[in-house]
Amino acid sequence: MKKAVISLSGGLDSATLMARILNDVPSIELHICNFFYGSKQNKYEQIAITKLVKYYSQNHKLVLHKIDLQNIFQHVSSDLLLSGGEIPEGHYEAEIMKKTVVPGRNMLFISIMASIAESIGAYDIYIGVHSGDHHIYPDCRPEFINAAQQAIWYSTDQKIMLRAPFLQKSKADLVAIGHSLQVPYEYTRTCYKDQAIACGKCGSCVERLEAFELNGLKDPIEYEN
Amino acid sequence: MKKAVISLSGGLDSATLMARILNDVPSIELHICNFFYGSKQNKYEQIAITKLVKYYSQNHKLVLHKIDLQNIFQHVSSDLLLSGGEIPEGHYEAEIMKKTVVPGRNMLFISIMASIAESIGAYDIYIGVHSGDHHIYPDCRPEFINAAQQAIWYSTDQKIMLRAPFLQKSKADLVAIGHSLQVPYEYTRTCYKDQAIACGKCGSCVERLEAFELNGLKDPIEYEN
Repeated sequence: MKKAVISLSGGLDSATLMARILNDVPSIELHICNFFYGSKQNKYEQIAITKLVKYYSQNHKLVLHKIDLQNIFQHVSSDLLLSGGEIPEGHYEAEIMKKTVVPGRNMLFISIMASIAESIGAYDIYIGVHSGDHHIYPDCRPEFINAAQQAIWYSTDQKIMLRAPFLQKSKADLVAIGHSLQVPYEYTRTCYKDQAIACGKCGSCVERLEAFELNGLKDPIEYEN
Repeated sequence: MKKAVISLSGGLDSATLMARILNDVPSIELHICNFFYGSKQNKYEQIAITKLVKYYSQNHKLVLHKIDLQNIFQHVSSDLLLSGGEIPEGHYEAEIMKKTVVPGRNMLFISIMASIAESIGAYDIYIGVHSGDHHIYPDCRPEFINAAQQAIWYSTDQKIMLRAPFLQKSKADLVAIGHSLQVPYEYTRTCYKDQAIACGKCGSCVERLEAFELNGLKDPIEYEN
C-alpha cells in the first residue's frame, strides 16, 4: 500500500490537503504529524485534529504521530508562542503579523516528516502552505519550498519528495476545493489566540472569513460576537 | 559582539571546527548545540562535550544549548541508535556502514540551529562535515549542504547562512588543522559503540586512527587492546 506523511495542524489548509490526498488515493496509508510546539492555539488545534482524524478514519487508514517540540521551541521567540506577546489583530498580510512568525518552523517540521517518511518507507511528504502565507512567512514562499524540496531530496539519498500542492493557490481556492470534497470545516481551528471560541479579529481569522465570503459560503465555526 | 551557532558532537571534526572558529574570531559568542538523540555513543559524547566546553570557556564566551531529540528519533530507525542493531565493524566507507545512517539527522540539526540563530541574532551556523562522510551519509554530501544552505537562507528571510568549511577536507586534513591549533583531542569521542573505551574497530574509529597515522601523529585517546 502506498504511504505518505502529512503535517496536520487542525487548520483549514491542512484539513483540505488531507481531504484532497484521501480523495485522490483512498487506499493510501496516511501518516499524520501533529506537532505540539507551545503555540497559543496548540491546545485547540489538538481538539480539531482529534475530530478530523476520527472522521477520516472511518473510511481510511490514518496513523497519528504526536510530536512534542516544546523543548526545542523554548529556545525560540515569537508572539505566536505562549511565551511571546499578544497576538496582533488586523489583516493577515499586514506587517504587524510578522510578529507571529515562528523562526524555522516549517524547516523543522519537514525535516522531521522526512525522517519519519524514510523510516516507514514513504516517498512523499505533504504540507498545506498556500499563496496567502507568502507575504508574512518566509518559510511558506516558493523559493523556500523549492530549496527545501532539494534539501529533503538529497538528505534522503534521492528518495523523498516534499510536496506543497497548494503553494500557488489562495485561501479562497482552498475553501472551494474543500467544499467540493465536503471537508467538515466545523471541526477545524484557525484562530491564533489562546481562547476556545475563534476571535474573528486576528489575521488568521480575518483571512479565513474572507475566504468563505469570496466563495459565497458561510464559515460553519462559531466566532466571538 | 559577533555571535554564531555550532553543532558540537564531542567528536574530532566538530571539536576542530570549534577551535578554528575561536581561533579566527576569539571574541565571538559561540552558541553550542549539543543534540541528544538516543545514539549508542551519546552518553560518552556528553562527557567529551563537557570537557571541551570547560577547556575553551577559559578564554572564550561559550553558551551551551542541550537539546533532547529522543522523542523525535523514537520514530526513526538506525543501527547507530540504542534502539537499533549492532554497530558494524570495518572501514568507514564500506557499504555496511550505511546501517549507521540516521535518516534526516543533519537536516533536523541545522533546522534547529537556524531557529536558535534567528532567535539570538546570529547570522552563521556551522557544521563539521568533511569529505570522508560523503560516501555513506547523504546528509553530509556537497549537494545536500548546498541545498540546505539555500533552504536555511530562504527560511530565515535571507538572514542566516549555513557554513561547512571542512566540506572538501579529509579527516587527515582536520587532524592537521587541529594539531596546529592544539585541539585537546584527548577529550574527544569518536567511537560509535556503547562502551567507554573506544573499540578501534568500528568505521568511525578506523577512520580516526588512519587520520592520525597519515599525519605521523599518535591519537591521544585510549583504545581497546
